[in-house]
Amino acid sequence: MSIYDVTGIGNAIVDVLAPCEDQFLIDYKIEKGSMTLIDEARAKELYAAQKNATEVSGGSAANTMAGIASFGGKGAYIGLVANDQLGDIFAHDLQSLDLIFNTPRYIGGQETARSFIFITPDGERSMNTFLGACTELSVEHVDAILISNSKVTYMEGYLFDKDPAKAAYYKASEIARDAGKEVALTLSDSFCVNRHKADFLDLVENHVDILFGNEPELCALFDTDNIDDAFKMAADKCKVVVSTRGANGAMIALNGDQTKVSPVDGVTVKDLTGAGDQFAAGFLYGYTQGFDMTKCGELAAKAAAEVIAHIGPRPQIDYKDFV
Amino acid sequence: MSIYDVTGIGNAIVDVLAPCEDQFLIDYKIEKGSMTLIDEARAKELYAAQKNATEVSGGSAANTMAGIASFGGKGAYIGLVANDQLGDIFAHDLQSLDLIFNTPRYIGGQETARSFIFITPDGERSMNTFLGACTELSVEHVDAILISNSKVTYMEGYLFDKDPAKAAYYKASEIARDAGKEVALTLSDSFCVNRHKADFLDLVENHVDILFGNEPELCALFDTDNIDDAFKMAADKCKVVVSTRGANGAMIALNGDQTKVSPVDGVTVKDLTGAGDQFAAGFLYGYTQGFDMTKCGELAAKAAAEVIAHIGPRPQIDYKDFV
Repeated sequence: MSIYDVTGIGNAIVDVLAPCEDQFLIDYKIEKGSMTLIDEARAKELYAAQKNATEVSGGSAANTMAGIASFGGKGAYIGLVANDQLGDIFAHDLQSLDLIFNTPRYIGGQETARSFIFITPDGERSMNTFLGACTELSVEHVDAILISNSKVTYMEGYLFDKDPAKAAYYKASEIARDAGKEVALTLSDSFCVNRHKADFLDLVENHVDILFGNEPELCALFDTDNIDDAFKMAADKCKVVVSTRGANGAMIALNGDQTKVSPVDGVTVKDLTGAGDQFAAGFLYGYTQGFDMTKCGELAAKAAAEVIAHIGPRPQIDYKDFV
Repeated sequence: MSIYDVTGIGNAIVDVLAPCEDQFLIDYKIEKGSMTLIDEARAKELYAAQKNATEVSGGSAANTMAGIASFGGKGAYIGLVANDQLGDIFAHDLQSLDLIFNTPRYIGGQETARSFIFITPDGERSMNTFLGACTELSVEHVDAILISNSKVTYMEGYLFDKDPAKAAYYKASEIARDAGKEVALTLSDSFCVNRHKADFLDLVENHVDILFGNEPELCALFDTDNIDDAFKMAADKCKVVVSTRGANGAMIALNGDQTKVSPVDGVTVKDLTGAGDQFAAGFLYGYTQGFDMTKCGELAAKAAAEVIAHIGPRPQIDYKDFV
């Protein structure tokens, strides 16, 4: 028996989103479409230049949990925020969705993490993350009761950017497997994959049941330019592989059997922030309800289509209507 | 000579916006389409019930200043935030637009003001404002240098909800008039008009050059159901009257001469928050540049059309392109 469908673990971040022109990314040497970790000085520089900003709770796994809750799924989240107003906002935005979020607040010199996200006219988002309190996420925060009572524990590749959080990943994975539950990983970002390739290959081989990755991420992981080859290699190692392909939809492999997912037509892309996160939400909701892969893919595509049509990485409507 | 086009004075508020169904407003006894002042207990109750929220700097006059800056106008803002993260966000969102905002932070027990705004499927917004630090706004914050160097000083009717802020209004008005500058007032809200009708009638008679009001506000002020009568009475008393009429556009009177403003066609309304504020921004930018009333009305309508097509009360694009 599982009380929860999914427990997510990740960097607990408040997003600071604003539109910009492509020239801005060039002027400020921002890597387009990627997530770059930044220090406090860089955070100040970028924020000073950011006009017309909106604040909204973010963090990849937390966004996915918000999506799962919007579908009606039950879940929990583990992540570290400071005891400040942004931490209050982050906590509220999970708890108001009836998600369990009881990681004790970080008390120290660092503020709640922020990601300064710039959205170019093509809808692509370029993320600049100041980890703040997240740098202190460690094994002590891994709640064994939540994890052992969840069908799936879902974690971000981003956790590998800090050693204490990486240790938390392994501990959570072990608890889940020992309880007979499954572990899901999103590769997060192709630069993140390149930073931690050996670790990620070991994870995929030994510690992951359900793998999420887009085309650049899977290709980076398996050192190939051919997404079909990368997908096949991943499917040989993991029970489930969900390979998102932007406007081309997605491919799912379950025990090697492939299912094609069509994208939702007619969406005007406003902001790609959260696209992968909500795709994962739709898939994981369906998967934990026992739906077939076609239905899981359909829910995933609909959630992703909703989130890219507005600014911000979380649902603005009730995903229950998609089911 | 004026250094600034407009100085705005108002309640400095961070908006917490979320969609909801009409039934939610009924369940929580929220006055639809209006601004209600709430205490801390009510703020906690409403926030706990608010799902999928977005934070963005708000405050009626501050929204207007952000719009004027987006058009390329020069301006300043006077308002009170606490020395907290939300205060930092509020200050950033003005200063990053090159607006002057140097009101000293409030240091005391209260946090930066928040307005919990619920957006129903028709796009109407219902605001529940916890004034926090704003309750301390007073004559000591009225910066005579900014006001006497601004072509127009623009103030919210909402200031009359607290006596110290009301005193600040009169002081600012006196400084502006003594410097040979103009004073603009927005009536803010029909409930606000009803709360302060005698004061507002005195203002319109003696302390206002440019009056902004929508249909319910002007009708409430002059105790009539006929907007044409109310508009005529206002135009008899103020040099300029700008009467917004929702989907029917607006009417402007300048020294009694009327100009009709057509609405922008084909807008899908997502969130009416900031519609009046950005209409005022477009008008005041045009007015302070010396444009004719037709052009002022056109800029106003375009700014309002932009802001109601997305969630949040401030521009998400550059209004310079409208000029």
